[in-house]
Amino acid sequence: MTINILFAAKYERWTTYEPHLRTALDAKGLSYSIGTDIAPPDVDYIVYAPNSDVQDFAPYTKCKAVLNLWAGVEAVVHNTTLTQPLARMVDHGLTQGMIDWVCGHTLRHHLGMDRHIHGQDGLWREGIVPPLAQDRTVCILGLGALGAACGDKLSYLGFDVRGWSRRQKHIEGITCYSGQDGLNAALSGAEIVILLLPDTPDTENLLNATTLALLAKGASIINPGRGPLIDDAALLQSLDAGQVGHATLDVFRIEPLPNDHPYWAHPNVTVTPHIASETRPKTASEIIAENIYRGEHGLDLLHLVDRNAGY
Amino acid sequence: MTINILFAAKYERWTTYEPHLRTALDAKGLSYSIGTDIAPPDVDYIVYAPNSDVQDFAPYTKCKAVLNLWAGVEAVVHNTTLTQPLARMVDHGLTQGMIDWVCGHTLRHHLGMDRHIHGQDGLWREGIVPPLAQDRTVCILGLGALGAACGDKLSYLGFDVRGWSRRQKHIEGITCYSGQDGLNAALSGAEIVILLLPDTPDTENLLNATTLALLAKGASIINPGRGPLIDDAALLQSLDAGQVGHATLDVFRIEPLPNDHPYWAHPNVTVTPHIASETRPKTASEIIAENIYRGEHGLDLLHLVDRNAGY
Repeated sequence: MTINILFAAKYERWTTYEPHLRTALDAKGLSYSIGTDIAPPDVDYIVYAPNSDVQDFAPYTKCKAVLNLWAGVEAVVHNTTLTQPLARMVDHGLTQGMIDWVCGHTLRHHLGMDRHIHGQDGLWREGIVPPLAQDRTVCILGLGALGAACGDKLSYLGFDVRGWSRRQKHIEGITCYSGQDGLNAALSGAEIVILLLPDTPDTENLLNATTLALLAKGASIINPGRGPLIDDAALLQSLDAGQVGHATLDVFRIEPLPNDHPYWAHPNVTVTPHIASETRPKTASEIIAENIYRGEHGLDLLHLVDRNAGY
Repeated sequence: MTINILFAAKYERWTTYEPHLRTALDAKGLSYSIGTDIAPPDVDYIVYAPNSDVQDFAPYTKCKAVLNLWAGVEAVVHNTTLTQPLARMVDHGLTQGMIDWVCGHTLRHHLGMDRHIHGQDGLWREGIVPPLAQDRTVCILGLGALGAACGDKLSYLGFDVRGWSRRQKHIEGITCYSGQDGLNAALSGAEIVILLLPDTPDTENLLNATTLALLAKGASIINPGRGPLIDDAALLQSLDAGQVGHATLDVFRIEPLPNDHPYWAHPNVTVTPHIASETRPKTASEIIAENIYRGEHGLDLLHLVDRNAGY
C-alpha cells in the first residue's frame, strides 16, 4: 500500500527538499508517493511549513500526522481545523546551527568585539581586558532542545551559565530555575541573556521593563528565539538608558523588519535577518522519514506537540 | 632563611601584582622578601618580564631561576648572560582568555558576522546560510598549552579541527600533524587557520606565499600568537588576490602597529591591539609561588624552557 505524502510549503522549498526526502524515505524502506499536489482525501501525511497554502486541515480526512518543517509551531498549533497529531522539527542541523550562532554572538558580546571590528582607524585601543568566561554570567531563557544544547556548549567554554524553563529541569553545567520566582533569580545580575523560548501567550513580552531592570547594568540581549518574547518599546527604552548595553536580534514581530524600524537605526542594536538557524534539508528529511516510519508501524511520533502547552 | 624575590617588570605592573604575589607566597608558607629593588648578589628568584630593565643576568650570582610573567620567551631565551633556569608562564587565566578570544573570532569568521555587524542599513540580508561547524575545517598551528586548549573547545563546538606541531602530538578531537609534510597536509584546504606557535627561527614566516596558497580559497587567518609567524607582504598579496578572505591579527612585528601600516586600511583585515590574552595577576601569581616553592624544595620547575628549542 502506497503512503501518500503531501509536501506543503512554499514551492521553492520543494526543489530543495525533494531529493533529500526521497533519499531518507528510501532508506527507511517505505513505499510512498510524494508531491505538492495530492487530493486532500488521499493524503496520509503532510510535511508542513506554517506559511504554506494549507490552512484548513478538514479536507485531509485520513491524514495521520502533520510533520512541521520548523521548530516553531505557534502559527499552526491553535488552528482549530487541525485534529491530527502535530510534530515539531527537532533537527540536528538546526540545533548545530543554533549552537554556532548563539556561542558566536555570546563570545562577541563577552569580548566586546565590535569595538575592534568598527575601530580600524589606526588607533591602538589596548587596556580594556574583558573578564574571563568563568566570571561572566549567561542566562538562557528556555531549556528545550535548543536552549539545553547551547547551554551545554557555553558551559564547556567556561561561562557561568544559568537557565530558566517553565518546568524545572536538571542539566549538568547549568544552574536551572523555573517558575516566576525562578525567573527573577535567573535574570538578576545576568550579563548576557539568550532567548530560546517558544512563542506562547505565557512567554509574550517576557522581557519587559520589569524584567530588564533585573539584569546587570549594560547587559547584552541575544534573541534567536521569537520576536514577541520582547516588549520592543521597553527594550528600546532600556537601551537608551544604558541598562541594556547591546541587543542582537534575529527575530521580530514583523519580518523582514521594516526598514524604518528604530532597531535598524539604534547604535546598540544588531539586526540579523532570521538566520540564527534554519532547518537543514538533509538532516530534517531524516527526521520526517523517521516519523512517517513510526506512524506506519504504530510507534510514538518523535517531538509530538502538546497542543495545550502550545509547543 | 628569607628568600629574596626581585620583581623585574615595568613599574606599573608592580602595584597590580604585589598583593596577588604576597597572597600566593603566603599561601605556600614561604618566608620571603619581595620588591623591585634588591641588590643583584642577594636575589634568589627573578619574576621577569622581558621588557624590564634587567637585561644582564651576570650580576645575579646566586639566582636560582628566572620566572617569566609571559607565555612568550623569545626576547629572553637567547640572552647569553642568562645561565639560570628559565620558566615560561602557563597561566590558567591566560589560557582561558585565549580560549575566549580564539573561539570567539573563529565563530565570527565561520558565521560571517561582520556582514551583519556592518550591515545595519535596513536591508534584510537573508539567504546566505553558513555551513555547520562540522563542515568547517579549522587548522591550529601550534599545539602547546594554548593551542591544545583552544582545539579541545573548538572540537567540542563541533568544528572539524586539525592541528600541527613540531613534534607529533596525539590529542583527542584533533587530527594531529607534524613535520614539513604534515604542515602541508594540515594547511591544505583549511578554511580557518589559527596561529599559536612560539616565535623561533624555525617558525618565522611560516605563513608565506607558498603555505597561504595551500588554504581553501577565501580562508580566514587568525593570529593571536606572534607577529613574525606571518610574511606580511605575502599575506597582503593573498588578501588582495582573494586567496585569503579575511585576517584578524592581534600581534605584529612592531607594536603598537604603526598607524600607516597597510593592515589598518585593508578592508579584509581586523587589527586587535595585542589583547587576545594577557597574564592574569591572580592566577599567574599562583604559578610563580608554586615554582618558588618547588625551587626551594628541590622539585622540578613547572614549564621549564628548553633553551635549544627556544620555548
